[in-house]
Amino acid sequence: MPHQTGGAKVNAVVFEGGVARLEGNRSLPRRKSGEALIKVLVAGVCNTDLEILRGYMSFSGVPGHEFVGVVEEAGTTALVGKRVVGEINCSCRECEFCKMGLEHHCRNRTVLGIQGRDGAFAEYLTLPEANLHVVSDELSGEVAVFAEPTAAAFRILEQMKLKRTDRCVVLGDGKLGLLAAQVLASVTTLTLVGHNRRKLEIARSLGIDARLEEGFGERDFDVAVDCTGSAGGFKVALALLRPMGTLVAKTTVAGDVPVPIWQVVVDEVTIVGSRCGPFRPALEALRIGTVKVAPLISARYAIDNFEAAFAKAREKNTLKVLIYPAGDSWKKTAASS
Amino acid sequence: MPHQTGGAKVNAVVFEGGVARLEGNRSLPRRKSGEALIKVLVAGVCNTDLEILRGYMSFSGVPGHEFVGVVEEAGTTALVGKRVVGEINCSCRECEFCKMGLEHHCRNRTVLGIQGRDGAFAEYLTLPEANLHVVSDELSGEVAVFAEPTAAAFRILEQMKLKRTDRCVVLGDGKLGLLAAQVLASVTTLTLVGHNRRKLEIARSLGIDARLEEGFGERDFDVAVDCTGSAGGFKVALALLRPMGTLVAKTTVAGDVPVPIWQVVVDEVTIVGSRCGPFRPALEALRIGTVKVAPLISARYAIDNFEAAFAKAREKNTLKVLIYPAGDSWKKTAASS
Repeated sequence: MPHQTGGAKVNAVVFEGGVARLEGNRSLPRRKSGEALIKVLVAGVCNTDLEILRGYMSFSGVPGHEFVGVVEEAGTTALVGKRVVGEINCSCRECEFCKMGLEHHCRNRTVLGIQGRDGAFAEYLTLPEANLHVVSDELSGEVAVFAEPTAAAFRILEQMKLKRTDRCVVLGDGKLGLLAAQVLASVTTLTLVGHNRRKLEIARSLGIDARLEEGFGERDFDVAVDCTGSAGGFKVALALLRPMGTLVAKTTVAGDVPVPIWQVVVDEVTIVGSRCGPFRPALEALRIGTVKVAPLISARYAIDNFEAAFAKAREKNTLKVLIYPAGDSWKKTAASS
Repeated sequence: MPHQTGGAKVNAVVFEGGVARLEGNRSLPRRKSGEALIKVLVAGVCNTDLEILRGYMSFSGVPGHEFVGVVEEAGTTALVGKRVVGEINCSCRECEFCKMGLEHHCRNRTVLGIQGRDGAFAEYLTLPEANLHVVSDELSGEVAVFAEPTAAAFRILEQMKLKRTDRCVVLGDGKLGLLAAQVLASVTTLTLVGHNRRKLEIARSLGIDARLEEGFGERDFDVAVDCTGSAGGFKVALALLRPMGTLVAKTTVAGDVPVPIWQVVVDEVTIVGSRCGPFRPALEALRIGTVKVAPLISARYAIDNFEAAFAKAREKNTLKVLIYPAGDSWKKTAASS
């Protein structure tokens, strides 16, 4: 069923030809069969967005993939009016990878705000209904908007078995590092290593054993998770691992990174690339407070100030920057919560 | 018990200050407690040796780690006179890695001809008795000398479970590639991919599905094993893998290699560094003929001609080069076999 508001014009941040601009008269996105039309309440800025603005994935269109929204139209009428978060990979369900059960790796996939599909820095987006998770009323929008990156942290637990006695280090005191540290600390012996004293202090306030990288002992860890978001993180993670340890790679920077492969071979390290994860445990961890996100919110911007939002997100002391597509609605939200 | 021949002078290839030379008056190596003194019958040249001569591992001393020899002195008298091959990692059995059961990764280890221990391009070497495996009379020296690299191929089977239906590609038609292809073809669906028509022909003669790299389909394989021995192999292996596939890294080239880590993350690839392996299944495979090595022997040299041996080993069409420390004794061997 086509939606009823085809003629409406809406705001969206559009990245094209290397430049991001606010488009005020963008057509309301048309939902396809099986998809829902979602009004975005709040969106989060991720490092991947900043990489995309530097050319990663050669993406053009509306960036943004972390969001909470309200379903305005859907084939499943029970969804309409519900507050949702959404998984970002949209699969064809027909290619050989989908048939192997690797839908997240679908050969023909689109990825919200990353690959072939307009994203969340806009008033409206569309996603397949199958990708949506209804958000419990107990969760505020500013907590639920962390579902996607928290799910990415939970992906690690899907990929490997961690024991309580495993010595695990998360490298990087940024947004993803602080989420991954909280998720992993709930199942293993965790240390967070970073550069930024302020962020490490926030980590400590969340109960994390957080330390400065300098002067840190080498080869002490069974598992190292690179959440640095920088090209140098991989090598540092490798140096912290014991022989036959496991390096979980989370950092996506555009281009090639120099890696001492000989060291991977000699130390028989296992490297596990890790991307998107399961939303259900993420939402549950956010609900019960295993993962706390309030201290991670650095700033809020209306979509009109998206350039200031991106600039703020690039600053060293910044953690999560939130973008409100319907103007400064967070002031109302904050007052009501 | 110290050996009885301390005053003897013996031949050895010595690599020092970036130069390899034949030393004719080197002292017979002194075996320590628990070690055996072994007279080398034949040694094999490995790519790692060629890398070492280019500065890899900053090794100085006698290179060479593939050998068959005869025990001349040992604490265990039953070993004396026996023909043996030897595992190359010598562990302290006291450090934290040894105590974790990671003896091959001992923090204080020496490695025959690679790290802190004189190797096999010499008339004599010493190794701990615990490292030795007696060679069955059924195996000629020129077959048994492949035990070490064949064991390295078997290491892959220790590290991962392969199913008969897994589509596995070995990249590299060199010595290690041809051994790994034979080992893996015995348990899974194997393709060898290389550049050298002559070597691919040898692979086919061994029953391997061997193909030229050019025009090869991408992302078709569950497992890719990089045996190229070159810096570019890793990236090619990555391109051949399906999402969530496994890349087994066997190549040790000195220095950093440019790697698209973002692709490892996005495709959630697992990378497994793989080094030395178990000698028993290797010797057994060589005995029963699962792994055939006769077509892999390209040339034989007396130790006096070690420079010609290394030069030959560097040539594109060369596979295994053997070095005979006791002059041209292979002529006698060849006649008697």
